[in-house]
Amino acid sequence: MRDILPADKARRERVLSVIRGRYRAHGFDEIETPALEEYSRLHAGIGGDNEKLAYNVLRRGMDAEAIRAGADDAAALSDLGLRYDLTVPLARFYASNRGQLPGVFRAIQIGPVWRAERPQKGRYRQFMQCDIDIIGDDSARAEAELMVASLDVVDALGLEGATVRINDRRVLDWMLDTFGFTEEERPGVLITIDKLDKIGPDGVAKELRERGAVASAVDAFEAFLNRPQTDEVNPFGERQILSALPENAPDEIVAHLVGIGEAVAVGRAIEGDIPLTFDPFLVRGMGYYTGTIFELTHPSVDYSLGGGGRYDGMIGRFLGQQVSAVGFSLGFERLVDLVAEEAGDAARAVVLVHDADVPVSELIAHKAALVQDGARVRLERRTKNFKALLERSAADGYTGFAAISAGAAVGSLEIKPLS
Amino acid sequence: MRDILPADKARRERVLSVIRGRYRAHGFDEIETPALEEYSRLHAGIGGDNEKLAYNVLRRGMDAEAIRAGADDAAALSDLGLRYDLTVPLARFYASNRGQLPGVFRAIQIGPVWRAERPQKGRYRQFMQCDIDIIGDDSARAEAELMVASLDVVDALGLEGATVRINDRRVLDWMLDTFGFTEEERPGVLITIDKLDKIGPDGVAKELRERGAVASAVDAFEAFLNRPQTDEVNPFGERQILSALPENAPDEIVAHLVGIGEAVAVGRAIEGDIPLTFDPFLVRGMGYYTGTIFELTHPSVDYSLGGGGRYDGMIGRFLGQQVSAVGFSLGFERLVDLVAEEAGDAARAVVLVHDADVPVSELIAHKAALVQDGARVRLERRTKNFKALLERSAADGYTGFAAISAGAAVGSLEIKPLS
Repeated sequence: MRDILPADKARRERVLSVIRGRYRAHGFDEIETPALEEYSRLHAGIGGDNEKLAYNVLRRGMDAEAIRAGADDAAALSDLGLRYDLTVPLARFYASNRGQLPGVFRAIQIGPVWRAERPQKGRYRQFMQCDIDIIGDDSARAEAELMVASLDVVDALGLEGATVRINDRRVLDWMLDTFGFTEEERPGVLITIDKLDKIGPDGVAKELRERGAVASAVDAFEAFLNRPQTDEVNPFGERQILSALPENAPDEIVAHLVGIGEAVAVGRAIEGDIPLTFDPFLVRGMGYYTGTIFELTHPSVDYSLGGGGRYDGMIGRFLGQQVSAVGFSLGFERLVDLVAEEAGDAARAVVLVHDADVPVSELIAHKAALVQDGARVRLERRTKNFKALLERSAADGYTGFAAISAGAAVGSLEIKPLS
Repeated sequence: MRDILPADKARRERVLSVIRGRYRAHGFDEIETPALEEYSRLHAGIGGDNEKLAYNVLRRGMDAEAIRAGADDAAALSDLGLRYDLTVPLARFYASNRGQLPGVFRAIQIGPVWRAERPQKGRYRQFMQCDIDIIGDDSARAEAELMVASLDVVDALGLEGATVRINDRRVLDWMLDTFGFTEEERPGVLITIDKLDKIGPDGVAKELRERGAVASAVDAFEAFLNRPQTDEVNPFGERQILSALPENAPDEIVAHLVGIGEAVAVGRAIEGDIPLTFDPFLVRGMGYYTGTIFELTHPSVDYSLGGGGRYDGMIGRFLGQQVSAVGFSLGFERLVDLVAEEAGDAARAVVLVHDADVPVSELIAHKAALVQDGARVRLERRTKNFKALLERSAADGYTGFAAISAGAAVGSLEIKPLS
């Protein structure tokens, strides 16, 4: 966990404001759920490995005897816990409030989650998640709306040129069946396939053999990976998808992917290439995905800016029925690191430096006049190290400064640029 | 704890955006601290009664034996807890990060706090606090900056006409001394005085006698409350303050109050009455105040919209030195209830209602064109109860709607007002 200082906090809030504004424009509605959820919901088996990382809150009102009696039973000691993701809370929220929500519910959730991770660089025990989800729409429109809105968000943050890598969990399952892997070994095979970018076809084949996967399946898979291919993978569409898969790919799944591409193209008003790439070996870690999976990538970085997919089994869990759902999680911390500092002219954010003898009322009058004109204004008493004062002010986002002497007329200050 | 649904969440975020924007303009910097603080800091005696309401997090990695061994010792079972206010975290933040902050630090903190209150109407176990604090300035400028900025916030929320009730804890102490109350009975006497608005001078005198307060002091106090007074209490200034107090009020404290009034007047560019009222019997509950105390009031409601004061002993607590500090907490939940709904014209927030046979790409194209024009757009499949669909859309903040048929040209939709 960490403190967030002024300059960083300002950048984070600016990014959040863009995210909220663009997602709202695309018809998503922000909701908020409590940070604490019931222990039983957080440990219902839908949070995957994160369940083990939950912070549990000590049940209130227990005396020492009750604590000793409950020492063997986590649920006796704890009735509440801090959420470790925003998906379990969304499932609970949807079950509680469905009657007040539109037929297709497009949710924005922005808020902290907590995981008791081992301390390591760049990983925090409290961090922001920023999710959008569409509940109740099983058509390609849902994926397209998520992608169009998210591409709009990164554009608005000055990160034009992002694209989407896409696959479908059912494609993976079908391919592994086709090659002859058994259903039991599928999870392990997927973990290996996920490394394809890093270790290449030979590395994948080697690791699968070491895992003891069905030998004929590994042979068939290796042959497929090493088949002759043309370099032409664009434009995104049926031809590209079919050329990237073994023969006889399931029509329905391919059509769903093609439909997403067409809808994204019109949603982005694109004349040329659709900003989608079909990647039949995209896996994505979470076990709950049931259909489309995708990641947002940007040419400036080699990690994804977010990802998501269909998870039709989870949202209806607390309702006891199947509800179609597809979600996308923006990598908020990564985006914050990538967005440029906001530029500003000297007159918009001004530090007023004064000597100790300037009366309080004069200081406040100078400040008020500039605030009234639309500026952001900080009063600072002159220090011995004037240069350090100006440098710190610039680091805090101020762009101009002026000196105030006692008796100076309001409106007469000469504002100079800080850098 | 509660879920916050879309219409309410949108209003809350709009209010937060105004608060952030105006406080930033006035030179305040937002910071963020983790929701979890160390158990020992939360229970260091500076949180007052709220310490008892803290949610404590079960220490991780304890087996049943360790739990049984620690059953008598809260600190053994719990190393972290959820913050119950933003002041303890601010004191910890300031001690940790002082070297990177300006000499006078103007902080904004906006975030949830948690208190295990007994469930009752209108009181939540998780609620937003919205604090500004000025650390390192003992002059009247600090109070004036807090007040000018906060009055600007409520103006910007459409609640013009707010005023500030002000007093000084040292005035209360001096008055009680003057009347002859002992220092030991002061806390109890203050609790009774705090009811003056409700039970009147006679009620206060009666309750003080029932409490067994020094009889001569109660007599002197009662005589003072019932002294002949002119109705003229404005304008705020030395004359009003002195006329509201017993004779020989301490010059320094009166001058500090007068200075705040003068600075607020120039900060608000006010020609006529200063929007301050001196109230020598304003008490404010928290025990940690050491000087000025004040509340923001608005003619439309009989409760305060926020309050604050000087608390010079607390911020330096974790630094082991005295640091002057004055803070103000906006009543965020109250403000949200008071602000009006945002008005909007039909073309700005549009629900597009479509039949099942309209292709996905056409829907996305219609939506994209309107989003591109700056609208907020939701796609909705037509339902049997069309009226209910429109009503729910209006409740969610949409202002216009259009029907989409298959094959309609993009840009040809006729948008009608929703209400």
